[in-house]
Amino acid sequence: MSTTARIGFLGGTGIEGKGLALRFAKAGVAVVIGSRSLERAQAVARALHQQLGSELITGTENREMISACEIIFLTVPFEQAATALDTYRDGFRPETVVVDVTVPVRFAGGRVELLSLPEGSGSQSLAKHLAEGVHLVGAFKTVPSHVLADFDVPLDCDVFVCGDSQPAKARAMEVIRLIPDVRPVDAGGLEAAGTLERMTLMAVGINRRYEIKTARFRVVGL
Amino acid sequence: MSTTARIGFLGGTGIEGKGLALRFAKAGVAVVIGSRSLERAQAVARALHQQLGSELITGTENREMISACEIIFLTVPFEQAATALDTYRDGFRPETVVVDVTVPVRFAGGRVELLSLPEGSGSQSLAKHLAEGVHLVGAFKTVPSHVLADFDVPLDCDVFVCGDSQPAKARAMEVIRLIPDVRPVDAGGLEAAGTLERMTLMAVGINRRYEIKTARFRVVGL
Repeated sequence: MSTTARIGFLGGTGIEGKGLALRFAKAGVAVVIGSRSLERAQAVARALHQQLGSELITGTENREMISACEIIFLTVPFEQAATALDTYRDGFRPETVVVDVTVPVRFAGGRVELLSLPEGSGSQSLAKHLAEGVHLVGAFKTVPSHVLADFDVPLDCDVFVCGDSQPAKARAMEVIRLIPDVRPVDAGGLEAAGTLERMTLMAVGINRRYEIKTARFRVVGL
Repeated sequence: MSTTARIGFLGGTGIEGKGLALRFAKAGVAVVIGSRSLERAQAVARALHQQLGSELITGTENREMISACEIIFLTVPFEQAATALDTYRDGFRPETVVVDVTVPVRFAGGRVELLSLPEGSGSQSLAKHLAEGVHLVGAFKTVPSHVLADFDVPLDCDVFVCGDSQPAKARAMEVIRLIPDVRPVDAGGLEAAGTLERMTLMAVGINRRYEIKTARFRVVGL
């Protein structure tokens, strides 16, 4: 795969999608914001244009984005992710890499807790909603959306990437490497998503205890 | 608690115990190596003396160490840890802080895997083996023993500390802070041990894939 692969965002009008799209566009990569609503996708793309001063971000309906992109970041909240994948299941191109950045959390009594899923992790659960030949890779789970969205702040951390298809994982890592201030780290098979999701919850707790919003991780010694 | 608390190592003659004892002694803290065998404890203490050129490390039987120390690092392999705690259960001083650095792994077919424990983590399982008033704190789980033992290398990482007793966790963090090149990070209650143990397994996988032995973690943005 060349680094000119088209990069899309399924549900790209939320905080994760906008933050990631800006970071790729800032690095000179063309990206497509997808939304259920064409108008919303175009409005967000225009707003990001103005923020960045570049024409690298376009907006379109999810279905059209999916038919045009080879790497698609899944940037809806986890509770909407399975339905979104089901809705567009037959629209993905063969060998598309779906990059799952979601974390299966719920808010209960003022606390954030991880959903207990029979598959062991959100990513393993979502992988079941893809057609054969479409590959799910987990990434960016441990990078807080606040930090992603504040695009004047360098990410300055590692992006743990996990997945059961080695080629799909390699393609995701190649694309992530286009963002200059992160390092993709091969975290293993898709079952590692359970570890990354727990790390995210731990970071939420660290944020709360230390009164910050920015906790993320880097591997030392690599 | 003053920083002059006596620090002991239950099963301190292995790689973790020796590495940690050296790091504390290098920071000017007196430590006691415990072992089932007085001779082995004294031999290890002598060897560490010579390595460090300091008299801050002594060696004695586990039982004597336990009766003299207020902070005790549990540095036997996980599979021996419950038995070790049971053996000395009634010997701990009230309010002793036991710092569990073990990770419940097993080697199966050339791979390392995490033991599935009904309590959710090794630390939660071991906590049941302590008398009332003795507190278990998890720490150093994500710091590789190879790095601990190579004491010319700065640890240069975070030490995640978890536990259900806030005072016990604070005391452990105060002691860990004596080692100049690590930062203790409050990772939450004892249930966070399950996250830390999974992170250790992930680091083992990263080490294997990248052909290193040194992967450990730091929180960015804190």
